[in-house]
Parts: sequence; structure tokens; C-alpha cells
Amino acid sequence: MATKVRAQLVGATGYGGLGILELLLGHPNFEISALIARDDAGRRIDHVYPHLTGRCEMVVQGPDDAEIGKDCDVVIFATPDRVSQGYAADLTSRGVRFIDYSGDYRFGNTEDYARYADRHPSIKESTHTTPDLLSSAVYGVSELNAAAIAEAPIVGNPGCFAIGIVLGMAPLYAEGIIQDGTVIVDGLTGSSGAGKKPAPTQHFSHLNDNVIPYRVLNHQHVVETEFTLGRIGESTAATVDFIPHLLGTTRGILNTMHATLTRPTSRATLMERYRSFFAGHPFVRVLDEPPTLKGTLGSNYIDLSVFTAEGDRRITVMSSIDNLMKGQSGSAMQNLNIMFGLPQTTGLDRGPLYP
Amino acid sequence: MATKVRAQLVGATGYGGLGILELLLGHPNFEISALIARDDAGRRIDHVYPHLTGRCEMVVQGPDDAEIGKDCDVVIFATPDRVSQGYAADLTSRGVRFIDYSGDYRFGNTEDYARYADRHPSIKESTHTTPDLLSSAVYGVSELNAAAIAEAPIVGNPGCFAIGIVLGMAPLYAEGIIQDGTVIVDGLTGSSGAGKKPAPTQHFSHLNDNVIPYRVLNHQHVVETEFTLGRIGESTAATVDFIPHLLGTTRGILNTMHATLTRPTSRATLMERYRSFFAGHPFVRVLDEPPTLKGTLGSNYIDLSVFTAEGDRRITVMSSIDNLMKGQSGSAMQNLNIMFGLPQTTGLDRGPLYP
Amino acid sequence: MATKVRAQLVGATGYGGLGILELLLGHPNFEISALIARDDAGRRIDHVYPHLTGRCEMVVQGPDDAEIGKDCDVVIFATPDRVSQGYAADLTSRGVRFIDYSGDYRFGNTEDYARYADRHPSIKESTHTTPDLLSSAVYGVSELNAAAIAEAPIVGNPGCFAIGIVLGMAPLYAEGIIQDGTVIVDGLTGSSGAGKKPAPTQHFSHLNDNVIPYRVLNHQHVVETEFTLGRIGESTAATVDFIPHLLGTTRGILNTMHATLTRPTSRATLMERYRSFFAGHPFVRVLDEPPTLKGTLGSNYIDLSVFTAEGDRRITVMSSIDNLMKGQSGSAMQNLNIMFGLPQTTGLDRGPLYP
Amino acid sequence: MATKVRAQLVGATGYGGLGILELLLGHPNFEISALIARDDAGRRIDHVYPHLTGRCEMVVQGPDDAEIGKDCDVVIFATPDRVSQGYAADLTSRGVRFIDYSGDYRFGNTEDYARYADRHPSIKESTHTTPDLLSSAVYGVSELNAAAIAEAPIVGNPGCFAIGIVLGMAPLYAEGIIQDGTVIVDGLTGSSGAGKKPAPTQHFSHLNDNVIPYRVLNHQHVVETEFTLGRIGESTAATVDFIPHLLGTTRGILNTMHATLTRPTSRATLMERYRSFFAGHPFVRVLDEPPTLKGTLGSNYIDLSVFTAEGDRRITVMSSIDNLMKGQSGSAMQNLNIMFGLPQTTGLDRGPLYP
Repeated sequence: MATKVRAQLVGATGYGGLGILELLLGHPNFEISALIARDDAGRRIDHVYPHLTGRCEMVVQGPDDAEIGKDCDVVIFATPDRVSQGYAADLTSRGVRFIDYSGDYRFGNTEDYARYADRHPSIKESTHTTPDLLSSAVYGVSELNAAAIAEAPIVGNPGCFAIGIVLGMAPLYAEGIIQDGTVIVDGLTGSSGAGKKPAPTQHFSHLNDNVIPYRVLNHQHVVETEFTLGRIGESTAATVDFIPHLLGTTRGILNTMHATLTRPTSRATLMERYRSFFAGHPFVRVLDEPPTLKGTLGSNYIDLSVFTAEGDRRITVMSSIDNLMKGQSGSAMQNLNIMFGLPQTTGLDRGPLYP
Repeated sequence: MATKVRAQLVGATGYGGLGILELLLGHPNFEISALIARDDAGRRIDHVYPHLTGRCEMVVQGPDDAEIGKDCDVVIFATPDRVSQGYAADLTSRGVRFIDYSGDYRFGNTEDYARYADRHPSIKESTHTTPDLLSSAVYGVSELNAAAIAEAPIVGNPGCFAIGIVLGMAPLYAEGIIQDGTVIVDGLTGSSGAGKKPAPTQHFSHLNDNVIPYRVLNHQHVVETEFTLGRIGESTAATVDFIPHLLGTTRGILNTMHATLTRPTSRATLMERYRSFFAGHPFVRVLDEPPTLKGTLGSNYIDLSVFTAEGDRRITVMSSIDNLMKGQSGSAMQNLNIMFGLPQTTGLDRGPLYP
Repeated sequence: MATKVRAQLVGATGYGGLGILELLLGHPNFEISALIARDDAGRRIDHVYPHLTGRCEMVVQGPDDAEIGKDCDVVIFATPDRVSQGYAADLTSRGVRFIDYSGDYRFGNTEDYARYADRHPSIKESTHTTPDLLSSAVYGVSELNAAAIAEAPIVGNPGCFAIGIVLGMAPLYAEGIIQDGTVIVDGLTGSSGAGKKPAPTQHFSHLNDNVIPYRVLNHQHVVETEFTLGRIGESTAATVDFIPHLLGTTRGILNTMHATLTRPTSRATLMERYRSFFAGHPFVRVLDEPPTLKGTLGSNYIDLSVFTAEGDRRITVMSSIDNLMKGQSGSAMQNLNIMFGLPQTTGLDRGPLYP
Repeated sequence: MATKVRAQLVGATGYGGLGILELLLGHPNFEISALIARDDAGRRIDHVYPHLTGRCEMVVQGPDDAEIGKDCDVVIFATPDRVSQGYAADLTSRGVRFIDYSGDYRFGNTEDYARYADRHPSIKESTHTTPDLLSSAVYGVSELNAAAIAEAPIVGNPGCFAIGIVLGMAPLYAEGIIQDGTVIVDGLTGSSGAGKKPAPTQHFSHLNDNVIPYRVLNHQHVVETEFTLGRIGESTAATVDFIPHLLGTTRGILNTMHATLTRPTSRATLMERYRSFFAGHPFVRVLDEPPTLKGTLGSNYIDLSVFTAEGDRRITVMSSIDNLMKGQSGSAMQNLNIMFGLPQTTGLDRGPLYP
């Protein structure tokens, strides 16, 4: 590739923006055309984040000072819900592709989007403003939708909890052996998924050494999870009971997933099917031992394992990801590689930070 | 009470021994007759634990230097499995009551003990050495068995995970509305339940910021949980799928429990039944919001809440305890109060340490 | 004591207010006449802090709804700087004693207060509004000023860093062996000293696993430290270079203090003098080993140790406290006991929470 | 470079071995000829460290099964003290260069080594077994000794505390403005410097939320610090009072260093001199704000800042490093690059992991 892909980053100063910025800085085939954000506009990004000293001196531009979609091959919206909707029509009409971190373009139809919006605390009951563009957007789980992502004008980057559940359960739905209505997931997440804005729940003295269940049985990521799993294989519907738990740690999501099988299947058989399902996917690792939260820290891996009980009729699947990597910017980078015809691992080949 | 109850503490230098020692030191009606332990015998307990400086200067005696059960009203075995079995016949024949922290006297029969031993990594396939004493032992969940505990020669103090699950599910089993075979529990625990002995899993660099699932679907505490829940109300059997997760925090257990109900029941109704079931029990708090791990830290409380989903047919119950208090020494103190006719809260009325 | 001391608590919903509330709830000789706070006025305190469920159901009153100083024997201002100044004249004229958590009444003169205010980020360059009352206020280090505290109409509760440094260095200043201008202190603090208000520095994702030095050589607590040490023994001045470091932990302050002695003195001699200086003071523990942060957690202890180097001419003193106990509400409770003629340990005799 | 440098790694299964293994795996110009270790010999390295799954499947060889120094261009001893001494004569005689992580080859003479050994808990009073080789070893602070490292047959990789102090104070010693006998350092370290072997001090329940001062004024790293600083510029001696503090965090060292200057120098002047001293050194960052522990996490940076007090006569310097990177394997990699004529940043250009 002679010339580099020019990426414009909107929402550059949040944790999502920071994550993709760092990946782009280390990527041989991308360059950043502009950093755009409402907060900290006018400041150098290494003054906003001192750990970037010596690595990037770009100045953050306000959304009014920079034209979204100008002078770039792709726009990355690391922004809250309903931001990219405001630019989507203009961008697609000009032929500028984009990837969005929010729920704006994860659903192919307005009904599912409405279900999602209804559960989302900050956009409750909103309706989609560009319903006609939903069908041209692809849900960005690289392992499931690579061909479509490669061509898509719009990619909806998955939710952090969702990707861990979707990849964890996909082989079982593909096999058609999940008894409907039996899926239960306890999700454990570090604090960084909530972003950099101070809030009582994220206050150190409150969260340190704590576990805080929240949005019990009512988290918005369930919608895209059910939507996606329900379309895999011969399934037609999927129901997921999901309870997120906020942990006193910074990074990582560990999902523990339970289900009843329609026919008894041994652990050995299931492990073999998982390995076969994910063969050739460089970021999925099927482990003999239970995955640990720190086993994927800082990397784009998703670690999986499967266990069975009660005569191999009940199963427990666990998945571990770094919520800011595979759960966010790592997946975005993987999708961007796919969108521009690069190997999925380019710029992403770093191992977990351990210990 | 004119004279104080004299308690002999065996296993005094582990975390379990430390916990009950501290409670006894602050208790108006108990005094400690001897501290006995294999480790650190001959040392002052405040040299073993410098945070006790100024609070206790007793010297730890080795098990060979002190006679178990001599000069005391009760023996507290804060010891590993199979230690108290060796003294039980002698103690009961001499009329000395005891309470044991291990699984030795949690089961009324040898079959359930064998199931337990089979799952326990360090006593695998052991058989009970005093089967005839099992029927005179009471399982020490204070809220369920107070009358029997008051008279019991032997009390088997509950396992830390077990008590959180048992109390969390008891009202539902009493009501008879749990569909059998549907109970799934994800348990989250701090590190202190594993005791003070250094081990790779408990090594700081490994555990910090980590979540480590272990003994997936095979933890020994399930046996007493099923045994106990199965005998509540009109139930005859209970099955629990249980996955423990070790967290990078020191104290606390949060159990998230799932089940399907035999008949739809609203959250309001369930909450009311929980409050009524636990009325008069000073350490059980039924909360409107999900309990948090830190909400019980350092106290003997168990915090509970119930949520429903899918037309009130699926429920999620959460319970939070301090694993070293309600999950161990706090329950032991509560049981000792009951055994000696004292109010359950004596010496236990301290609030959680927050923040 | 037949009747209880009635205490009115202003600033009831911050961490400082919470700390003294919990101590008062467990105190046999105090009762709370009112909880007053600007934030959360109108809410039950156990709804603000769910961990208080079952322990206190009082409703927080707004400062406009409750008369400060009415119907009580003492007012406790757990409030920011410059709040108690507004009520001081009225209270003292009515003969109502009060204790204040801020720097308002820590200094006997306006010059030192001005130095303090000048360094304090939120009250920069303020002047004292009741300069005539400063001479009737006592700086509340219980171990140094008990007699004066017992009679004082106003007690200025010490700053959290200051009390650890003052008590750590007091025996050396009393001995007159500190070479002036040589005192250097590195202070390490948990996050809770900054209170419950969310802020970027206290944001979990930023602070977790971090150490953040701040206000380097410019922290306001230095003023009361120098003021107090400079008046001990035959000293006339004290200078302290102080660097606070914020740690990713919730509670505790560990100060490591360095100085050059005017004459070589062995560690053994110094330890003996520390023990003799603090004889009869129940909350000061002089340890052979270095104190640890967690060794005082949740208790009112201050743990100290002294080491020497370079021919016994250089010394290092370390002190550990729980910043919310001995560093704040514990000291306040100790001072209140002294003010009302009670043993210093009443309501404060709880050991550290370990592990 | 057509062919890759072949590196043999001894002590491959400790944290030090793991660190350099991961760097070598991602390095374009190195390849690993063998992994050698006493522990876990015969196991695949990704079975020892599951987070390496998919990244390295090499089998660890026991020290008896593999010949040290065979079939390689360089040997990396990530081993405890006194291991490399046993192979040094053989390796140098065969012309095989090596780098050693311990104190074995940090000193150019036996006297300083003896001072070091005397302070080191595990090698107390040992004498060096290859005194004649000491003069051909270079102390591996890349920023100070690059020319010598490039040619050295033996490189003694610096101690983790030492490198942060040496680089932090070097510009001042070069300037000749440190008043001798005034340097005091409080060092804060994460747990990983103690390695992977479980121990009471590293036990999670003990260390979590704790600060534990240790080897007060007696840490062995002081010897190489004084040795090195004393030889910079026109200095002839350096004395450092050093107090290490173990923190409840995994990675990172923050040193807070104090000294008195021989002549007043403003902060602005000092900062300018630091920037000039380290110009061209890619891993040294001089920051306007105090460095934070997490600001260097996972990277090879050392972040520095300088502050002055008392009429610019007293200074405080702070440095932050990742103890396993710049404090160990990162420096080793940097030295290896220098030894083999590669740019210092090759294989090391990764930014800190934040948040």
C-alpha cells in the first residue's frame, strides 16, 4: 500500500478516542488527518493525556472548527449515541465511509434500535433519524461479518459486553443446540467502559474493592446480543438474561454465560467445535483452563472456554476481553483493517500485559 | 451473666482464628482461655499480627502443649477440614461443646459428607471418622436453625459461599416456587477466603486487577447448599450450578443467583416475602437497590435484593457478605451467642467500613 | 453520666460527617440531635448511604431548615473551610461549644491562617472573619493539648496529613534535637481524604494502580505542622518540606519523615523516648517494625517507628493512620470525649480491620 | 541486518524472563535460541503463562539439558544473584557476550560488590567468584554508558530502584551542584519486582490496599546508585538515604528524591538542564507536571520532573518507570540493541497502557 489511509477521529479525547488514536499512531498503514472533540478543543493531545508525551503533539480541534469527513478516507466516531446520526447522511452522500462506536448503526432496523434506545439511560425513547441508512450499516463483529464489513459504507462497532457474549455463544447458536430462553449471563466489567467523565459510581473511594451490580436484567447491550445470536445458524430468536457487575478494576470484561443444551454434548466435543468455528481467527483463543480477566489485558484477544454439567446438558461458557481493546478500539482497528483490505492483525499484534 | 464463657481457640493464627479472636476480645460475655495453633506456636499473637499491638498479648500454644478442651466452656476450631474430627469424640464424651469452621460437621449423614469430600481438593475421597456424631451436629446458619444451635453439642459453621446462597434462596424454597434444576449461581469472592498461606493464585502480582474463575461447576460448598435448600419447606431436592470467581479484592462475597419460578411472582411480592421471612433477624437486610460488595465490609450483615424478568418467571437474587464475618467468624460469633443464651448481636454490632 | 451529650452534626453527608455519625451511633454517651447538610437535604441518611440500612433512619435537614446550635450541647462542623466561621460568633455568644474539621480554627493568629489560606486551592487569599475568636480556639491534637481541649469553646480538628507528621516528630522537637531546616516528609494518602465529590483526580480509571504526587512542596497542611512543631519544647521554628502523593487506595496515610539530628542518638534511645513521650496515650503505638498502611485501617491508632542512619545523625520516622479516623473523625471523637470529660477511648475501642 | 541475533534466555520462567521473552518475540532483529529455567523445565512456556497462548510455544529446557552459551550470539541471564558468575568465565573465554539481571556485574570492583552483597538478604557476605572479570563488565544504564555497552562482553543490567534514582539525579551530579550527604529518596514500588514466587509479603490479602516500608535505610540498590552517581561529573562521592515502600499495585516505581543544592538554582534553569542533559535519549521524558506511576506503565519511558523550595536551595526530583520495563527487561532490550548496533528504540516503541 503506497499511500496511507487517512482517518479523521471524532471524539478524540475520551477513552475510546484515546484507544484508537494510540493504535493508529503505531499502525504502518494509517495516518490521522484530524483529532476532533468538544472537550479540550484547542489543547495539544499530549497535554490532555501526559502519557502521550513524545508520541503525539496534534492539537484537538472543536467540532465547529473542523469539517467532519473532509480530507480523509474514513471517519471514526468515538462518540456518544446519536452523534454520528447527525453526520451520516452527509458522509454517505459524499462517499466517505465511517465507523461508529455507539449503538447508532448496530441494528439493521428501527424496531431493534427502538428497543435499544428504550433501555439506554441517556437516549431513552429516541427514534432513529436516518432509518434509511440502517440497511447499509454492518454490525462490526469482525469474526462473523468480515465480508460485509469489507464493503460497508457504515460499520457499527459492537458494544463491549455484547462482543464478549456474541463470540462466546456464536458456535452454540451456529450448531443450533441452545434451548431457547435459557441463556443467563453475569458480566463483570472494569470501570473504564464508563469513560473518563467523573461520576459517583466511578468515584475511586466508592468503587475501589467494590462490586456494584447495575441495570439488572435491563442493560441495553442485550438487544444487539439477542439480535445477532438470533440470526446465526438456524436460530430465529435468542433471549438473554444479563446482569452487569461493575468491578473495582480499570480494564477488562469477563462474561460467564449459562445455557441449557437441546441435546447432551460433551465438553471435548464442544471445545473441538469452538476451535473449529474460530479456526483462522487470530484474536480468538480457546483455552483449556477458564480464561482470566488479566489474560487479555491490553491486547485484542478474546479468550474463551466451555464447561458442562448435569450430564452435559447444562453449559457454562466464559469469555475474557480487554473492554477498551476487543471491546472497543481493538475491534474498531480490526474492522478498519478489514474495510481497507489489510490483514486483520496489522497494528494489533501486541500481547497482553502480564503481570 | 456473672461469669464469662471461656472459649478455647484452635487454629488461632489463620485468618479464621484472627477473626474470632478479635470478636471475642471485644465481647462483654466471653473470655479466651487459650490460643492454640501449629504455626507460630510460642510467639505472642501481636507479634504474629502487629495490628493487634496493644490489644492482645497472649502467647500462641502448640497443639501438643495445650490440652484441647481443657479449662473452657467451648472450643472453637478455626482449622482445616478433618482436624476437629480427631477431637470430637473426646470432647463430646466430656461434655465440652464445640464449633467447627470446616466441613467436618456440616452434614447430618456420611453420604453427603462423602459427596463434599469428593469435591474438596485437599481431602478428596476421605471418609468421616466419627459418623455416629453427625446426627448431634447442627449446621450453623443462625437464621434458619437457632433453636437447634442453642442446644447443639457440635455446630458446623457454614461455608462462606454457602451461607450467602442459602440465605439468598431460602425464602423461595420455603415458598416452594423454585423450578428444580434451574438454579445457577455466579459467586464472586475476595482473596481472604483462601487464608493466609501464600500460593500462586493468591500472589499479588497475579491476582491484582484480575478475575480468576476456578473449580467451575465443581466447588465443594454446593453440597451443603443443596443439602440445606433441599430440606427447606416442601422441597425435597435442590440442584445448584455454581461457578466461583476469585476477584482482586481482599474481602467480600457477592453471589448472583438465578432461577426459574414455578409460577410468575412480581418483584414487589417477592420483596415483601423476603422481608417477612427475615423479620426479626438483625443481620439480614433486604435492599431496594442491588447490594454491593463493600456495603457489608467488616460487618456481620448479609444484604439481599431480588429482581424479576420475563413476565416475572425468571428471578435474580443477589447477596453480599463479608466472607470473614457473616461468611465465617461473624456467623461463628452469632452461633456462639445463641449457644450460650445471649442476644445474637452481642459483640457483633458494628457497621460496615465505608468508604 | 445520666444524660447524653447532644451533638448536632453539620456537613452530615460528606465522608467526614459520615465518619463521626457512625462513631456517635455507637457511642454510649452521645446522641445526635440533628443531621444537617446542603447536599441530600430531605433524604434519609440510610438512603444516601445504603450501608447504614438498619443503623440510622434520620432525615438530613437543609441548613435553612435547621437552626445551627439549637437544642444541642455541641456542634460538629464536618464542613469545608470557612463554613464554621459564619456561625462561630453566634455560637460562642450563646455558649455553644463546637469542633470544626476545616482549617478555620487551627491557628491562634491571623498571620498563620493567612499563610494557610494562601496555600489552600479553594480559599486562596481569604482573610479570617472572626480574628478575635482565634485565641479561644484550641488545635485538637488530643495527645498534645488535652487540658486545653477539655475547656475550649472551639476546637480546630487537625488536618489529616498534619496529625501524622506532628505526632511523628513531636518527641524529637520536645527533645530539641532536630536540626532546623532539615525536615523532609513524603506523605502517601488514600483517596478518601478528598471527600465524596467526583473529580478527575479521583476518577477510578485514572487513580487505580496509580501514584499521583500533587501540590509538591506547597500543601496547606504544612502550615499547621510547622506552627505546632515550632512551639513544642524549646524550639522556636520548624520548617517542613512536604510532598503529598495520592495513592490508588481508599483509606490511610503513611508519612515518611526525614531529619538531621543536632547530636547523634541511637535508635534504641529514640525508641525509648518515643515510648516514654507517648506513655498513657492509648492510641499511639510505637512499633519495632516499620508501620504499614493497613495496620491502622478503620481504627483510631497512630503507629510509629524510628530508624537512624549515618552514625545516628540522620533519622527516618514513619507514621501510619487511617485518614478518616485518627486523621479526621476518630480524632474528633477523641476530642469530643475530652471536651465532655469522658475517657478518650469511649466509643473508639475498635481494632484495625485486617486483612 | 540480514540474519537475526540469536539470544539464549536463562531464567525464562520468572517475571524477568517473561518480560524479555515478550520483547524478543516482537523484535524484528532478534530470535530466541532457547528458553532455559530450573522451574517448569519440560513445559511449554504458554502452558506456564497462558496469556502467551498463540504467541510462543517453545518448551522450557532445564539447565542440565541445555548448554549455556551454545548456539547463540548472546546469553540473557534473567536469574537471581550469583547464577551468571558460574558461567561467566566459560562464556567470556568462548567469546559469548552476556547481559545479567542481578547485581553480579554491576560493579567494577570487589569492594563495592562486597558492600552490595552485605546488604542483600539472600547473598549476605558472599564474595565475587570472578573478580578479574569485573573490569570488563559495564553497568547498563543505556543513557549514561552507551559507548561502553556497545563493546562490552558483559553488561550488568541495573537494579529497578537504582535506574530511577540514577537517571533522576544524574544531571545534578553532572552539574556538580548537589551538597554531599543531603540526598534522601523515598521509593515506591509495585509488587512485581519481587518476582513470581509466593511469599507472605506478596500475599494478596496482606498487600492489597497496603503500603509496607522495608529494608529501611538498608536496601542493596543504594550501593550501585552511590557508586554510579559518585562517578558522574566532578563528584567523587555520593551518599543516598533510601527507604523503599512496597505498594499494593503490580507494576511501577516512583522515586521521590530530595537534596540540598550547593548554589540556588531556579526550577526553570534546572528543567532546562534536564532537557538538555537528556536530549537525544528517546526514553527519557522531562515533564512540567509531576510524573505519575501509571504514566509509564508497560512502556520503557522514564518520566522526570524537578521542583525547588526554600529559595531554590532545596530540590525534589521525581521519576516514574515501569519496574519490569525500564526497571528491568526494557533496559535489557535497550542494552541489547546497543550491543548489536541497532537503534535503541527497536522493539521498544510502545506507549504506556492508560487508563
